[in-house]
Amino acid sequence: MKKVVTIGGGTGNFAVLKGLRQYDVDISAIVSMADDGGSTGILRDELGVLPPGDVRQCLVALSDSSRLMRSLMNYRFEQGGLLGHSFGNLLLSALEKVTGSFERAVEEVGKILYIKGKVIPVTTHQVRLRMILKNCQVLEGEREVYLSQEIENGYSSIYLEPYPKANPQAIDEILNADVIVVGPGGLYTSLIPNFLVEGVADAFVKSDAKKVFVTNLMNRKGQTSNFRVSDYLKELGRFIGEDAFDYVLVNNQNPPNELITLYAEEGDLVKNDLPDDRVRAAPLLGEVKQGAKKDLMRRNLIRHNCKKLAHELMQIVNHL
Amino acid sequence: MKKVVTIGGGTGNFAVLKGLRQYDVDISAIVSMADDGGSTGILRDELGVLPPGDVRQCLVALSDSSRLMRSLMNYRFEQGGLLGHSFGNLLLSALEKVTGSFERAVEEVGKILYIKGKVIPVTTHQVRLRMILKNCQVLEGEREVYLSQEIENGYSSIYLEPYPKANPQAIDEILNADVIVVGPGGLYTSLIPNFLVEGVADAFVKSDAKKVFVTNLMNRKGQTSNFRVSDYLKELGRFIGEDAFDYVLVNNQNPPNELITLYAEEGDLVKNDLPDDRVRAAPLLGEVKQGAKKDLMRRNLIRHNCKKLAHELMQIVNHL
Repeated sequence: MKKVVTIGGGTGNFAVLKGLRQYDVDISAIVSMADDGGSTGILRDELGVLPPGDVRQCLVALSDSSRLMRSLMNYRFEQGGLLGHSFGNLLLSALEKVTGSFERAVEEVGKILYIKGKVIPVTTHQVRLRMILKNCQVLEGEREVYLSQEIENGYSSIYLEPYPKANPQAIDEILNADVIVVGPGGLYTSLIPNFLVEGVADAFVKSDAKKVFVTNLMNRKGQTSNFRVSDYLKELGRFIGEDAFDYVLVNNQNPPNELITLYAEEGDLVKNDLPDDRVRAAPLLGEVKQGAKKDLMRRNLIRHNCKKLAHELMQIVNHL
Repeated sequence: MKKVVTIGGGTGNFAVLKGLRQYDVDISAIVSMADDGGSTGILRDELGVLPPGDVRQCLVALSDSSRLMRSLMNYRFEQGGLLGHSFGNLLLSALEKVTGSFERAVEEVGKILYIKGKVIPVTTHQVRLRMILKNCQVLEGEREVYLSQEIENGYSSIYLEPYPKANPQAIDEILNADVIVVGPGGLYTSLIPNFLVEGVADAFVKSDAKKVFVTNLMNRKGQTSNFRVSDYLKELGRFIGEDAFDYVLVNNQNPPNELITLYAEEGDLVKNDLPDDRVRAAPLLGEVKQGAKKDLMRRNLIRHNCKKLAHELMQIVNHL
């Protein structure tokens, strides 16, 4: 069975993992540990636990349990002192406290949810993301980086504090992968933070796996405005070297103009400017259900279709 | 297989259920819904859910899952906005929100914990316990009743507000039981509140089951000070009539004097004053582990041994 390793975090991973789960592959999801916003941020600050949010999303994406269990994991309390906490985050944090180990907590939730594959924190040390902008402003934590609209004016450094050792299991998975999938996801908040962990970029470069970059559908205003595919690769190249990827998956389907307009405040469409044969272009958009426009946040309106995405990835996996 | 139904709530039920779980009987635990203290009270007030605490304890008592899962259910957060919440309470409340039904939530947690038997809320309506004392003071809620030391000076009424319909499943279980076990547990906070639900006392009286009262080990100061076994039966008799019980299980083992002294602030030993042959007296005390004295609350120092308790109950069940 082919071994597919994903590297990411946040909601970007979700579609890739949910799509791949349907295929006969050995999946390991390596997840960034830099998240410090919302429910996750409160749990980190108040309980001193590792950030559960991104791990939870990966666990749910890989889960074979009932729809009810998956809804429960993502359920957010709507009132009182629990306001905003996702139940799955509380489960991971309580298990971390009971077992004394975040990795063990992730394993146990994996069992409860009957997940296919493994979810692996890229590091098990407490870290904070820091970004120093060209204007000397210091962005403290992933949340501040996520909210900044100044990044496109340039930054001088991005790093994790303190500089963490990698989870050895993450390194093993990368070295033994047949295919490694990076993205989609927030460039500075979900993707790059993985490569800032000691040894991860080296292992990635050293691995004989075929490496696939799944390009985001949309740029993020103030961060990657007007980025084309080559800009993403250039930015990642700072950490993993140029030409790191064997394949670049891009969407070639246009969303309805109405949605692009709705989305304009958040960012613009990512356009492909790579002429070379690494590029695999395909229609990868998810459909927007009737009525969903009002309910969803804008950033969720234009998103990947997990089946189409996995189909394209499996073309690569099957032709190794 | 014989059908054993317990009626109670709070920690009292725990030893009975944990003990009976080892035997080949069909167990149903009917649980009071009057709890409004601590984590449960906050969840009721803030989220409008039904009280999860007593149900959680019964689920854990009947659980065949790993020690880890049982520890997780009883884990209490120790810091921040989650301070004092037990994880199991959050699980039940989140599932109630996701499914829209407390009963469904209880069922689902039962599956997650591989429980033996069933846990049945005595009512699925939101109720508050009220007690009007002889001095005209009104105790609002189970917590206030639990904390009051004025009850032994007399009360004029105790009732649930609003007067709730019973959960039909609870009535069925009572009518179809072979043996019904009432107690141990707080007389006014865990036992009587079950019989204040419409139809429960009637069903209890009507049922052909053999009825067993498990007497508390200790009286509660200001509530049942110096109560003897006959006083407990008299108090319960107000709601289910005199001579309601076929058997009365009492402990005849003396705790170490040292523990009685430690416990004196909370209450005194319950003494048996019934000469009749309903009484089954046996040594029922649990051992206190070395070192536990410092860790446990006083009220947990003198408690039932679940194996001895179940052994005595099974003598009754097997001789039907």
